[in-house]
Amino acid sequence: MAPVSPLAPAAFPALPVIGGVRFAAVAAGVRYKGRTDVMLAELAPGTVVAGVFTRSATRAAPVLDCQAKNGGAADGGAAILVNSGNSNAFTGRGGMDAVAQIAAAVAATLGIDAGRVFTSSTGVIGEPLPWDRITAKVAELRDNLAPDAMAGAARAIMTTDTFAKGATVTVQVGGQMGGQAGGQSVRIAGIAKGSGMIAPDMATMLVYLFTDARIGHADLQALVSSINARTFNCITVDSDTSTSDTLLIAATGASGVDVTGSAAFAAGLEQVMLDLALQVVRDGEGATKFVEVQVTGAASDADAHRVGMAIANSPLVKTAIAGQDANWGRIVMAVGKSGAQADRDRLGIRFGDIWVARDGWRAPEYSEAEASAYMKRQELVIGVEMGIGAGRATVWTCDLTHGYIDINADYRS
Amino acid sequence: MAPVSPLAPAAFPALPVIGGVRFAAVAAGVRYKGRTDVMLAELAPGTVVAGVFTRSATRAAPVLDCQAKNGGAADGGAAILVNSGNSNAFTGRGGMDAVAQIAAAVAATLGIDAGRVFTSSTGVIGEPLPWDRITAKVAELRDNLAPDAMAGAARAIMTTDTFAKGATVTVQVGGQMGGQAGGQSVRIAGIAKGSGMIAPDMATMLVYLFTDARIGHADLQALVSSINARTFNCITVDSDTSTSDTLLIAATGASGVDVTGSAAFAAGLEQVMLDLALQVVRDGEGATKFVEVQVTGAASDADAHRVGMAIANSPLVKTAIAGQDANWGRIVMAVGKSGAQADRDRLGIRFGDIWVARDGWRAPEYSEAEASAYMKRQELVIGVEMGIGAGRATVWTCDLTHGYIDINADYRS
Repeated sequence: MAPVSPLAPAAFPALPVIGGVRFAAVAAGVRYKGRTDVMLAELAPGTVVAGVFTRSATRAAPVLDCQAKNGGAADGGAAILVNSGNSNAFTGRGGMDAVAQIAAAVAATLGIDAGRVFTSSTGVIGEPLPWDRITAKVAELRDNLAPDAMAGAARAIMTTDTFAKGATVTVQVGGQMGGQAGGQSVRIAGIAKGSGMIAPDMATMLVYLFTDARIGHADLQALVSSINARTFNCITVDSDTSTSDTLLIAATGASGVDVTGSAAFAAGLEQVMLDLALQVVRDGEGATKFVEVQVTGAASDADAHRVGMAIANSPLVKTAIAGQDANWGRIVMAVGKSGAQADRDRLGIRFGDIWVARDGWRAPEYSEAEASAYMKRQELVIGVEMGIGAGRATVWTCDLTHGYIDINADYRS
Repeated sequence: MAPVSPLAPAAFPALPVIGGVRFAAVAAGVRYKGRTDVMLAELAPGTVVAGVFTRSATRAAPVLDCQAKNGGAADGGAAILVNSGNSNAFTGRGGMDAVAQIAAAVAATLGIDAGRVFTSSTGVIGEPLPWDRITAKVAELRDNLAPDAMAGAARAIMTTDTFAKGATVTVQVGGQMGGQAGGQSVRIAGIAKGSGMIAPDMATMLVYLFTDARIGHADLQALVSSINARTFNCITVDSDTSTSDTLLIAATGASGVDVTGSAAFAAGLEQVMLDLALQVVRDGEGATKFVEVQVTGAASDADAHRVGMAIANSPLVKTAIAGQDANWGRIVMAVGKSGAQADRDRLGIRFGDIWVARDGWRAPEYSEAEASAYMKRQELVIGVEMGIGAGRATVWTCDLTHGYIDINADYRS
């Protein structure tokens, strides 16, 4: 078992109870021994569920099932069940049958509609999912449901993760609500898993968000899709996109506070999603450095994102960072290969506040010693000023180390 | 100094004399100590020179200079000068001045037009090129020019390469030529360098090809561009595209044999270019496995190429190969993320002749033991049958190992 990432947060956060949600986790022996590997979240009647999903052409059976169910009627109760150890991806017709068996068992046990049971699976690709090990545990999961058990759910969905990932915020929603003057508060909390096969350029990792806010499906879906573009879609560990990427958000409405159109709620949700996204980067397989790439002055925001991802995905940039080498020439290379509009003679590059290149040339004040000292830090900022427009983007990544090779030359994931 | 790649050819080939070309190499101390680092090729009057170049937006000064000179009048003599140790890339206005100084010195020393002196530089990015160390050696290079010195030239252009790369073929050009009956022969020989920063999706590495055939510039350019798309554009080591990628071909016409429209010449040229391209893969930084990815049944050839490169560039596929793991799930993942049209339920995957998946599901006859035994080979074939069309492509790559990290966390290239 790999040691905890040196970039991990000091502790798992204290997650609040979200009205209308109860959690349970169990060890079903899907693949791993001696640990929990299935989580269940029960959602109260009226809970609105929205999500974003991988656009992989080989996406897994539970992803296809979630996409079909997304946007369905929200009057009855709902549930989310997730297993680790097997992704139920590339499992043909049997994969869809496995999802149906699990959804039917959860629906019968909780007394809800199977069309409101959302499932995810993460782990090895191409192995038949032993769904009977999961359905055999559904009654036990139901009996253990508790409002304060979200941390256990976060642990149950880990694969090569070295730490469980959670985040929360309480939002004051100002103005008139329900005839009352003054602000009211809603809570948002979420959990995520992810460490390798992380390049959710089109969607996300496994992420589950819960809030007691009240909001309709169309508004919730638009909000989460928009924020996703600035958070999970801006991280990469290894440029590889999972077949199982799924983000689900459940709004129970238990607070009674309607957040439709609330800027404060949107900001709070973005804070939780960004926090979880950066925790995924901090648990990047083999990571020893956390890197923020800030691109400014591009022809468009899309071009800035393209440049940022080219840098963040470059094996040569990532190995230089691992070697603490202020190798800005490789950043020039990555800008050049990105496909974005660029003018070499206006390009500037900095490490933190240290300008190493400006106007297409080594900066006059450049000091190799100063740049090298900066590269020894654990948290790095790479700044790229394209000098041609107002487009900007920020992306996050980690370094590429021997640890990544160790994990992936050994582990069948 | 890294040991020679285990995938290297047994020996450097015996390269023939190409009429109209003479070579020399010298140690100019551009960056490396105790080895040659500059090569000069002198080309006889009338030699036609064509080339393909990186499309990087941050391409190096000598690349821009070669592109400007490509297609110029071929009546006078010409020359190619290449240095290793410094790429003269991202060096601003001073970079173009350095190219002009070198071209002027070569032109004056050989008595040719500076507009016919093609230069390349390879090595560290962003450092000013000490061009005066090179111009100081031009007279010595001229004095050492010899027809049989191509192997020395191949050694002088190496950077992280662990072996020099050369290839040659003699082509029988059949039919009526110059009033004579029967076939006549022309020779093609070439050298290349490349080991890391190899993803020439748009052009090539440093490659120099020489032939005594007679052919016009437009025909030669069309031929080399077309063959390049099937050879150098189909290899990748690390998905990173160099700022200096350059392929130049010089046709001296010394054989007197016109090869315009000759299928035999085209086939011979493709043989040499493919040979050199695969030698670059065999010298991939840290490589221990040589991998051919064969994609068939895609919606188009372009889609097949996209799938092949997604597999060949995937860090998760490449580390699994390093670990000798028959992890076909990661190949499914790479197909899914490639962006190519795919139907999961028609997809088939094989290692060599061993089918591991078919019709979107693990193959009925799949044997983990058999697949694992195959993965222990040094030369591997990954076959992907998309099952939806007639598009096909073959690409070549190597594995991703601790050796790659060692080389690139240390070396400032």
